[in-house]
Amino acid sequence: MNADEIRSILDAVTTGNLSRDEAVERLKNLSYEDVGYAKVDHARAHRQGFPEVIFGEGKTREQITGIFEKLIARSPNVLVTRTDAAVYGDVRNVVAETEWHESARMIRLIRDRDEKGAGEIAVVTAGTSDIPVAEEAALTAEAMGNRVTRIWDAGVAGIHRIISQRETLACARVVIVAAGMEGALPSVVGGLVAVPVIGVPTSIGYGASFGGIAALLGMLNSCSSNVTVVNIDNGFGAGFVASLINRKENPRD
Amino acid sequence: MNADEIRSILDAVTTGNLSRDEAVERLKNLSYEDVGYAKVDHARAHRQGFPEVIFGEGKTREQITGIFEKLIARSPNVLVTRTDAAVYGDVRNVVAETEWHESARMIRLIRDRDEKGAGEIAVVTAGTSDIPVAEEAALTAEAMGNRVTRIWDAGVAGIHRIISQRETLACARVVIVAAGMEGALPSVVGGLVAVPVIGVPTSIGYGASFGGIAALLGMLNSCSSNVTVVNIDNGFGAGFVASLINRKENPRD
Amino acid sequence: MNADEIRSILDAVTTGNLSRDEAVERLKNLSYEDVGYAKVDHARAHRQGFPEVIFGEGKTREQITGIFEKLIARSPNVLVTRTDAAVYGDVRNVVAETEWHESARMIRLIRDRDEKGAGEIAVVTAGTSDIPVAEEAALTAEAMGNRVTRIWDAGVAGIHRIISQRETLACARVVIVAAGMEGALPSVVGGLVAVPVIGVPTSIGYGASFGGIAALLGMLNSCSSNVTVVNIDNGFGAGFVASLINRKENPRD
Amino acid sequence: MNADEIRSILDAVTTGNLSRDEAVERLKNLSYEDVGYAKVDHARAHRQGFPEVIFGEGKTREQITGIFEKLIARSPNVLVTRTDAAVYGDVRNVVAETEWHESARMIRLIRDRDEKGAGEIAVVTAGTSDIPVAEEAALTAEAMGNRVTRIWDAGVAGIHRIISQRETLACARVVIVAAGMEGALPSVVGGLVAVPVIGVPTSIGYGASFGGIAALLGMLNSCSSNVTVVNIDNGFGAGFVASLINRKENPRD
Amino acid sequence: MNADEIRSILDAVTTGNLSRDEAVERLKNLSYEDVGYAKVDHARAHRQGFPEVIFGEGKTREQITGIFEKLIARSPNVLVTRTDAAVYGDVRNVVAETEWHESARMIRLIRDRDEKGAGEIAVVTAGTSDIPVAEEAALTAEAMGNRVTRIWDAGVAGIHRIISQRETLACARVVIVAAGMEGALPSVVGGLVAVPVIGVPTSIGYGASFGGIAALLGMLNSCSSNVTVVNIDNGFGAGFVASLINRKENPRD
Amino acid sequence: MNADEIRSILDAVTTGNLSRDEAVERLKNLSYEDVGYAKVDHARAHRQGFPEVIFGEGKTREQITGIFEKLIARSPNVLVTRTDAAVYGDVRNVVAETEWHESARMIRLIRDRDEKGAGEIAVVTAGTSDIPVAEEAALTAEAMGNRVTRIWDAGVAGIHRIISQRETLACARVVIVAAGMEGALPSVVGGLVAVPVIGVPTSIGYGASFGGIAALLGMLNSCSSNVTVVNIDNGFGAGFVASLINRKENPRD
Amino acid sequence: MNADEIRSILDAVTTGNLSRDEAVERLKNLSYEDVGYAKVDHARAHRQGFPEVIFGEGKTREQITGIFEKLIARSPNVLVTRTDAAVYGDVRNVVAETEWHESARMIRLIRDRDEKGAGEIAVVTAGTSDIPVAEEAALTAEAMGNRVTRIWDAGVAGIHRIISQRETLACARVVIVAAGMEGALPSVVGGLVAVPVIGVPTSIGYGASFGGIAALLGMLNSCSSNVTVVNIDNGFGAGFVASLINRKENPRD
Amino acid sequence: MNADEIRSILDAVTTGNLSRDEAVERLKNLSYEDVGYAKVDHARAHRQGFPEVIFGEGKTREQITGIFEKLIARSPNVLVTRTDAAVYGDVRNVVAETEWHESARMIRLIRDRDEKGAGEIAVVTAGTSDIPVAEEAALTAEAMGNRVTRIWDAGVAGIHRIISQRETLACARVVIVAAGMEGALPSVVGGLVAVPVIGVPTSIGYGASFGGIAALLGMLNSCSSNVTVVNIDNGFGAGFVASLINRKENPRD
Repeated sequence: MNADEIRSILDAVTTGNLSRDEAVERLKNLSYEDVGYAKVDHARAHRQGFPEVIFGEGKTREQITGIFEKLIARSPNVLVTRTDAAVYGDVRNVVAETEWHESARMIRLIRDRDEKGAGEIAVVTAGTSDIPVAEEAALTAEAMGNRVTRIWDAGVAGIHRIISQRETLACARVVIVAAGMEGALPSVVGGLVAVPVIGVPTSIGYGASFGGIAALLGMLNSCSSNVTVVNIDNGFGAGFVASLINRKENPRD
Repeated sequence: MNADEIRSILDAVTTGNLSRDEAVERLKNLSYEDVGYAKVDHARAHRQGFPEVIFGEGKTREQITGIFEKLIARSPNVLVTRTDAAVYGDVRNVVAETEWHESARMIRLIRDRDEKGAGEIAVVTAGTSDIPVAEEAALTAEAMGNRVTRIWDAGVAGIHRIISQRETLACARVVIVAAGMEGALPSVVGGLVAVPVIGVPTSIGYGASFGGIAALLGMLNSCSSNVTVVNIDNGFGAGFVASLINRKENPRD
Repeated sequence: MNADEIRSILDAVTTGNLSRDEAVERLKNLSYEDVGYAKVDHARAHRQGFPEVIFGEGKTREQITGIFEKLIARSPNVLVTRTDAAVYGDVRNVVAETEWHESARMIRLIRDRDEKGAGEIAVVTAGTSDIPVAEEAALTAEAMGNRVTRIWDAGVAGIHRIISQRETLACARVVIVAAGMEGALPSVVGGLVAVPVIGVPTSIGYGASFGGIAALLGMLNSCSSNVTVVNIDNGFGAGFVASLINRKENPRD
Repeated sequence: MNADEIRSILDAVTTGNLSRDEAVERLKNLSYEDVGYAKVDHARAHRQGFPEVIFGEGKTREQITGIFEKLIARSPNVLVTRTDAAVYGDVRNVVAETEWHESARMIRLIRDRDEKGAGEIAVVTAGTSDIPVAEEAALTAEAMGNRVTRIWDAGVAGIHRIISQRETLACARVVIVAAGMEGALPSVVGGLVAVPVIGVPTSIGYGASFGGIAALLGMLNSCSSNVTVVNIDNGFGAGFVASLINRKENPRD
Repeated sequence: MNADEIRSILDAVTTGNLSRDEAVERLKNLSYEDVGYAKVDHARAHRQGFPEVIFGEGKTREQITGIFEKLIARSPNVLVTRTDAAVYGDVRNVVAETEWHESARMIRLIRDRDEKGAGEIAVVTAGTSDIPVAEEAALTAEAMGNRVTRIWDAGVAGIHRIISQRETLACARVVIVAAGMEGALPSVVGGLVAVPVIGVPTSIGYGASFGGIAALLGMLNSCSSNVTVVNIDNGFGAGFVASLINRKENPRD
Repeated sequence: MNADEIRSILDAVTTGNLSRDEAVERLKNLSYEDVGYAKVDHARAHRQGFPEVIFGEGKTREQITGIFEKLIARSPNVLVTRTDAAVYGDVRNVVAETEWHESARMIRLIRDRDEKGAGEIAVVTAGTSDIPVAEEAALTAEAMGNRVTRIWDAGVAGIHRIISQRETLACARVVIVAAGMEGALPSVVGGLVAVPVIGVPTSIGYGASFGGIAALLGMLNSCSSNVTVVNIDNGFGAGFVASLINRKENPRD
Repeated sequence: MNADEIRSILDAVTTGNLSRDEAVERLKNLSYEDVGYAKVDHARAHRQGFPEVIFGEGKTREQITGIFEKLIARSPNVLVTRTDAAVYGDVRNVVAETEWHESARMIRLIRDRDEKGAGEIAVVTAGTSDIPVAEEAALTAEAMGNRVTRIWDAGVAGIHRIISQRETLACARVVIVAAGMEGALPSVVGGLVAVPVIGVPTSIGYGASFGGIAALLGMLNSCSSNVTVVNIDNGFGAGFVASLINRKENPRD
Repeated sequence: MNADEIRSILDAVTTGNLSRDEAVERLKNLSYEDVGYAKVDHARAHRQGFPEVIFGEGKTREQITGIFEKLIARSPNVLVTRTDAAVYGDVRNVVAETEWHESARMIRLIRDRDEKGAGEIAVVTAGTSDIPVAEEAALTAEAMGNRVTRIWDAGVAGIHRIISQRETLACARVVIVAAGMEGALPSVVGGLVAVPVIGVPTSIGYGASFGGIAALLGMLNSCSSNVTVVNIDNGFGAGFVASLINRKENPRD
């Protein structure tokens, strides 16, 4: 409940401009408005450059296009994740400048390109098959106003590949690491940098990888203390959190 | 491999102060130093106020005290995690100003109290039994130079408890949420704030909580995109990453 | 064993209309009737407005239509769950007033619309993708004579969404909550109401949601004591139990 | 936010007994009271005969006794679950009429013995080793004002044992069934009655029972549609929900 | 190594009909024959009426037909399990009297119809969807010379259904019970009979049935001591073991 | 419902010695007797030489002794499983001829030593640490009137150990195999004999044996079709079923 | 960092042929070469006859062909695993002598056929359906210069089948055993030989084999101490390690 | 079956020194001797320097000492694994030169110190808490005649630690890597060397490490093709297989 709003209601009661009963009702509603304040939150959020996001999975083409049309009115940047080229065909008709990213299965509209991040975000993959998940993270971070450095195929079986990227990694304010199979790369990267590392287990692997569980457990048990983890294949979440970490200014300012 | 060091070796060869063979050896060693550069990292790290940490579990009293004596020489702040009062009895003899935190089972020595964080770190628990894990996070974050706000017992079964803390949460640059049972609180907190939320599943619960697995899965599957997760009961890791996120200056500066 | 039937047999023996051996045989059969009394139960059940239900999964179109034809003779209300539009095409030819509910994949015939519930049943979903499961619950509860209030998309990531429904929830005699991902919503709803809450985990989610296991564990470990759980995606079961709870009169009356 | 409280504050402002700033502060606090309205809920709840409950596990003797002393002031009935005889020794000193139930490990204080249930609650166990969990359910239901019928040791391996209780079961408004091992009894009971059945898997069993998981899965997959499930060994939860189902009057009345 | 065969070789050496070196070779081969004696076993086995069995899964049409042609030369009865109608089309061309059993997906050739069982084998299912697995068991048992009684759809949710079959069950020398979902029926049947019960968990079920695991665990944890279990959906194995149990004469005779 | 009892009631009615209403009551009770007929079953069972069994785990010394005293009145042979020497101290005072079997933790009273089995039962272990479980099986089978052959320590790592027992195995009517670790022995034994093999996984093993799960899965997936499985460490169950299989006469005779 | 290369750079600096700054740069690069030295490793590796390998799964036809063209320039032997006939059509156009192995789904190019192994490698399968995985192992080992003996269909249910191969197994320097279902064969083979045995669990099996987990656990818990394990269906890995074990000379020579 | 032995029996029959029946008996026994040849294996094995091994877990002090006394008579080197100091007290009385290794919980007797390995075996640990398992491997390998290099505490979080050991690793003929937590070290080591790597997951870790499962899955899914895995904490097995790989001569020579 906002103090200014309370004050003006009280003033109106004192001056007789508002009856006591109406004041009671409005103060009660205000309390309800308080409960429902998150819409204001949403508004504040995209003023700060957060994109609006539509999770495409499980939605029809019509639903996605419909939601998309409403979102572009209030937000310059919009993402549609886990979608396909057919949906893109529809969405492109709404706003021509939307982009289609095949490997990440993402539609992206960026109209606000102001940089909002304090530093760089590095996105690393262990193998080439982890790239789609990593791209989802990278595209998300870019849409949220960050410079992104991509380092592909630097898995631990050839440890020199990631070590040779030390300088690049050292420039990042936060590092995202997508890895399947044994999910060991975040631990190694975590030891090479002094910034937060976000591990994204991918469902890549054979046999006892169990659709990403082996990688997930590997990352949760990382011996590097600067590693946190998001859900299997959740590139969007990793890119989103990395962007929050990298923000230039306190979100409340 | 540091360019300045290479330069001085080359100069010494050119001026004849160093034989070619000795130079080869030193450059090779330098390369090994390069491989072994992480020690320099460690040095740099604690100049920035990172505490040195001893994981107490599985170490004898003698081992812990021995390591502790070495660490206090090079680092102002030192933590011993997952230890007990008996070890504290020994360590207190080494440095009198060490503190003993019973619930978190942590020994803490803080001699550098400079604030290094840009904002506040909020640490929240769902129930009172999650407090030991949350305290480990809070004590770690404090030892790394952060102001910490503690919010205990704000689980989702009485949703007003966390909602009434909205203002406090809104001040935080990062929020740590420790929760057992269904692990739902990080999702709710994630929806209330626009900063990174670190979920710490705790092994609190009965029956099908499976020592924290239910809470872990709950947090990994959080419907709030700003939630990342650390291992079950890993309060130290959560406090460590939160401190990295909250740092005032780029760690490379 | 029904006392009246025993009496008439005894009378027949006493009057000599029945030989002792025949009476022994019939009383033994009667005892089998006793074992097989559940048919009477079924009869009693649908006199009280229970619909007959055909689980469509794994049955052929012919089988479903055949069973349907038999059931409509003895029960005014009939449900076919987990079926498809093709089966509906057949069934509609049998009774024209059957309804087809696409999202819940349910065929419904309601000819007895008497209200049998004492209060309202609220059905809540965390997200839009949980609606098919929730609809199965709602349609079932309606077919059993209940007024149903639907609250869609009130997940915990935007906690105001469910809190703003507090008044509506307060009117319910029982609440059904369908949620995937972390399955946290039943705990929150459980804290807002003082009536039984039935959690239905849905198989919605990605990565480590494991087809509903994360949600299931979340609900089983709910910190709200008024939550019970049914199987993953079992909307029918939730609607059925909610109807039993809400019944105006004791089922034995 | 309570309308009467708002009214009196407004009156005080209007009459000048309260400064505008103080009123703002108190209305804000009131708003926090609104957020914290659940305490009112609690108050309402125990006016309706809900007992206050202390989960004893993980709390010290001092903590339990301290909380107990506060609760007895505002609630006639109080339960302490998962506790031991030593705690009872302390608590008995506070209120002499507390009872100690060894098998359920529960302390119970009942001072309000009004019947609040519409019908009876039947509590059934599959084996004798399930009795402690079932007793927890039964004692809870009694403390919430219900008549409880206990049926012990009626497991499915001797199916006549439960069938011979048909008449007794038929009198119940809700049935709680505690079972370990394969957890089959709720399915059988569910087929015998037309009321809600709450399954409580117990951690009783050997080998591949996995501490209650086998029983839990058995109950979740019950072929009887009137079965819902609570967590393993959660007798309290089962008794609590059964009491909610059995309540004579709508909880909002 | 068969004593008679050794004797005849020794005689041949003694009489000079066999050179020492040839005898060494033949005795060594015989020893290999001894190691390879299982072929003799096979021969003995089908003299006793064991059918030859081809597991169809993972074999091509050509392979199955080829093996089938060889087997019919040495065994009157042959089964092909987990196959399809196309394979049957081929096999029927080889021997016209083969039968095709659609629900069990089995091809069966029975030319020896002698009864080899001491008693009857009862095959029971909990639901109609368990019938394919149960049919595989029943067809196998018949092919091995047993009389088989089928009891379909006698699940525990309507407990009278199986109890009304008590007399029939009492005639069986061994009972096979196929059940999905909670897998409770073998426990109930086990309590009704005094003979071995073989539980066959089926992969029937939804949600947390996990493709038969719930049923498997239920049967393994059966509270009836006369229940043993075979693998999920392994109807053939159940029918095979039941036939071994029911054999009139000791297999060594 | 027993025909003789029905007859005598009918006669009493006909002769006027019993009023119609009393007859109705008694026949109804008789019907309950019918429902409760399993007691007759029990009686029949131990006439056939089944021992009465007390599962000791989770029962107090007083409970076990109390039950024991009742059972010895109606059954010559009694077993107490999963018990300890202290209980034996008590039980020995009741009947001096009871035996104590330390490794199997079983108390055994055998007063009826008639042979009831058609053939021999072989009990095999893979290692020496599987012997306690195997002994439980062997002692049970002996108490049920069977001759038992013990083959200890014949695991597959030294395959000659079990092969050298081929002749002994060939004499058995049924074979019990107890094995931990990979649980491979039942498959090998199953290939060597033409009789039913009952696998008992034991909780012996390290690391990824998971308390018997590896052995359990191994046995369930046995490539030998004559293998069925009981629960982990369930020696009693294996001995019980083996005895049922081996019985000389049809249990109904 | 190679000493010769360092020396020549130093000489160039001393002789003035290289400026100090250029030398710094080249030494830094050299250091990067040092970090990137694994390419040299690769080179050394295939000089020793290691084939280059392309994992085909998840790569497009164009990608595979492109990589293939580059690899054939520097390595005589090249493998493409987990691919299909369509890719082979493309690759055959590049080098005509490539072979297509349908069952193992492998393309193989062998131009260096020198024997590099000290002894033989035996590859054994439990069943015919394990052959594809075993073939992958065998073809890999051959491509790495080993003589390979194949023993198909020697599962433990007919134990004589593997025992009769004792002499053949005794000739091997290392044995690979591919088995699904219970995965028991490696334990038996491990007991028959005194060389390393590599177990390859295959995803063959039904019901509770869980796609190879049962076999995997069986092999990990093998009672034979000479068994190690690779991932489910990982024939290539088994063939690769077996080749390393069998190498005639120390790889560093 | 040995040809020479057969020949001499045949000669004895031909010359009449042996009756036909006695020859039959001896040839049959010989066949059993053939089946029981593994004893010869054992003999041959320890002639080659294999130690005899007693697994101490689950055996009494008397049993271990008893077996130990028998083994020292036929084998120069003997190991007792998973034992304790009390057993060592007993065993030392039998042979004074036995050694006690506290961290590995192993008793070791080495009287034959001949080197039997072709190269060195490197044993590496990720952390200090993995040392007990690694020591078990190292002590085993030494007892089997190998030179062993120990590299402790070289986990991937400080990647320079293992990279700085490149030269040492390059000297090894086989590398054993013991690691808990995420189990990533074998993958990194596997990329640094061109020899077989044996991964030993240890049960070290917290939370979601699940007693070594995370490490086990990590190693099974290793992206380095030269990694095989043994059971959790199975240091003995790793040392045993490494010794077989490193053996100078073919074991059959």
